[in-house]
Amino acid sequence: MAALITENFKFVALFFKSKDVVIFNGLIALGTVASQTAYNVFAFDCPCSSGRNYRYGLAAIGVPALVLFLIGVTLNKHTWNLVSECRIRACKKVSAAAVFALLGSVVGRAVVAPVTWSVLSLLRGEAYVCALSEFVDPSSLENFPDSHGPEVMAGFPCKAVPADVLVYYDEINRRLKYESQFLGWLLVALSSVTVFLLLCLKRCCSPLGYQQEAYWSHFRSSENQLFNRTADVHAKILAAESVKSFFGFVALDKEEKDQLQEYGEIK
Amino acid sequence: MAALITENFKFVALFFKSKDVVIFNGLIALGTVASQTAYNVFAFDCPCSSGRNYRYGLAAIGVPALVLFLIGVTLNKHTWNLVSECRIRACKKVSAAAVFALLGSVVGRAVVAPVTWSVLSLLRGEAYVCALSEFVDPSSLENFPDSHGPEVMAGFPCKAVPADVLVYYDEINRRLKYESQFLGWLLVALSSVTVFLLLCLKRCCSPLGYQQEAYWSHFRSSENQLFNRTADVHAKILAAESVKSFFGFVALDKEEKDQLQEYGEIK
Amino acid sequence: MAALITENFKFVALFFKSKDVVIFNGLIALGTVASQTAYNVFAFDCPCSSGRNYRYGLAAIGVPALVLFLIGVTLNKHTWNLVSECRIRACKKVSAAAVFALLGSVVGRAVVAPVTWSVLSLLRGEAYVCALSEFVDPSSLENFPDSHGPEVMAGFPCKAVPADVLVYYDEINRRLKYESQFLGWLLVALSSVTVFLLLCLKRCCSPLGYQQEAYWSHFRSSENQLFNRTADVHAKILAAESVKSFFGFVALDKEEKDQLQEYGEIK
Repeated sequence: MAALITENFKFVALFFKSKDVVIFNGLIALGTVASQTAYNVFAFDCPCSSGRNYRYGLAAIGVPALVLFLIGVTLNKHTWNLVSECRIRACKKVSAAAVFALLGSVVGRAVVAPVTWSVLSLLRGEAYVCALSEFVDPSSLENFPDSHGPEVMAGFPCKAVPADVLVYYDEINRRLKYESQFLGWLLVALSSVTVFLLLCLKRCCSPLGYQQEAYWSHFRSSENQLFNRTADVHAKILAAESVKSFFGFVALDKEEKDQLQEYGEIK
Repeated sequence: MAALITENFKFVALFFKSKDVVIFNGLIALGTVASQTAYNVFAFDCPCSSGRNYRYGLAAIGVPALVLFLIGVTLNKHTWNLVSECRIRACKKVSAAAVFALLGSVVGRAVVAPVTWSVLSLLRGEAYVCALSEFVDPSSLENFPDSHGPEVMAGFPCKAVPADVLVYYDEINRRLKYESQFLGWLLVALSSVTVFLLLCLKRCCSPLGYQQEAYWSHFRSSENQLFNRTADVHAKILAAESVKSFFGFVALDKEEKDQLQEYGEIK
Repeated sequence: MAALITENFKFVALFFKSKDVVIFNGLIALGTVASQTAYNVFAFDCPCSSGRNYRYGLAAIGVPALVLFLIGVTLNKHTWNLVSECRIRACKKVSAAAVFALLGSVVGRAVVAPVTWSVLSLLRGEAYVCALSEFVDPSSLENFPDSHGPEVMAGFPCKAVPADVLVYYDEINRRLKYESQFLGWLLVALSSVTVFLLLCLKRCCSPLGYQQEAYWSHFRSSENQLFNRTADVHAKILAAESVKSFFGFVALDKEEKDQLQEYGEIK
């Protein structure tokens, strides 16, 4: 708490200096509203009705997972790199193995968030208990009245059941929550073993040693950075020439003039 | 756990270097939310049902331990160094003793977090009490009704038992918690003695004295640092040449120009 | 515990130097969580059952003491110095008296933390009351029913005893707590007298006067400091040559270049 307050004070001080107090306050207000809204909106409310329970639980787990997966695929630079490459050069220059590895990397990164979401949902257990309560076999409960069907079982997550079977709420809740958490832990174990095996496989198939891999990664990041910077300057030089040919002159600031003088005659 | 925390620290440190106070505050907020969620999600809920108790307790202790172990192995640089070495040079240059020592070091470091987790779980006792309550022998309890089987014993951790045996809750809870904590302390004693003996063995088998060991460790850290820095510069020079051959020029900042002028002609 | 705290302080100090306020705040948060968890985990829960009481009390006092002792021995530089010395030169150069003095110093320093832990446990009294309540002689209590054996006496720390002897709880608790605290104070007195006598003995056996001792200690600390600094530079020069022979050049920063120019030709 102390740390939080100290940090927030620094943050406030920073914005105070830049005189953007309004924007800062607006951000805080917005953040508060957003988080409260999110809390209310994403709260899980079981419909407690046979047939609907299942669909609702599935939607509450599946849709966010799908959205997270699509966001993961979209934000990955390699996706669009691969798409352009295949469209322009018809995938001639890339081998099937490379495409497979690249696709695997894209899907692998995009799958992290949905799996985390599913594991958290399963460990929390709410959605699972809601979705599967109607499928609990009444005959597996001691002395449970025979007359109740799935519609009654579906009411258990909200305790919306006849008074004579309300005593079974604890038993059913515990049983379903156990299944949910057990599945969650299984999923965690499975994913971590899979990730570990894939990492091993990747290292074993790579033709580079550990230090070579590190050098190669440095080289790629340096090249990427220099390429982007140089492409920027190159584009600016072309743009300046284009404007100059229209107006007869071009208004450049100090830094740009230096850049053009330095690299302009080279081009 | 330790590895996870270390990684998060690195992550935080990375963001701090970029002086992003906003990101920092976001991280704190996120951390608060995350820890509260974690507290709810990872809460131990005993299913209190014969057969399930055991599996649930095992999963709640074993899966995090497994995950921590795999993370520990994965994050250790030596693992991948050893893998590359063995793959490329077919382990010809390393003796069996060296491979054994390196594997031992990798496993030894990776085992710290799972053991800590197991000890904490055992000392807390929750999981053990849940897992083993069904195996308590009713005949060892004074005047315990004979008619109750393991299914009733399994209900004790939730106090979900018939009213006539509820008075035995304290006795059973105390007994199982004692076993759990006793095992925890035994594990602590065993691990610390093992670590101490291994350290002694390592020192006794090392051909270097204490001061020589210190000198050697300084040398390795210096060499590592200089190697990485030089490899960085080397990679940047190559990248600059590669970009230059594409655009005809390369946009370098002041510091990079100095580096290239100083080391460029040597290469 | 002491060693652990020292280590954490070093860790904090290290991060403080690098001005990483975030990491520092993270450490505070982590420390708070850790101490609260520790408080819950290490809470002393008497099993209140004959035979188990004794073992549990012994484990709860003895295992942390053992761990602290091993940590103390492990972290002491002299331990490994002595081990290397004995292994490499087969203890020929050190007299038996010197080995004895060095071992005494190592054990003496390592014993501080376990003794502190034992004194604190004894003064708190919880573990002692739990461990020894079953050995209280019922005949020493006025009008205590003869029919109760050690199993009943073992239940006193949890008040898990038949109602007719519950009135003796206060008496037994007071008596055992008195013994525990008395032993604790005795241990404090004994240790401080022993330490005082050992210090006197050390001064009496030393061939140096007080000022000479001070001079000697200054000399050793200066020599140690200069030795370490010079060994550092020596290792860096070797490392630089090794990297240069691999890449053809080596990227040094300003300070390192000065060091190498100054000392490089001496080597």
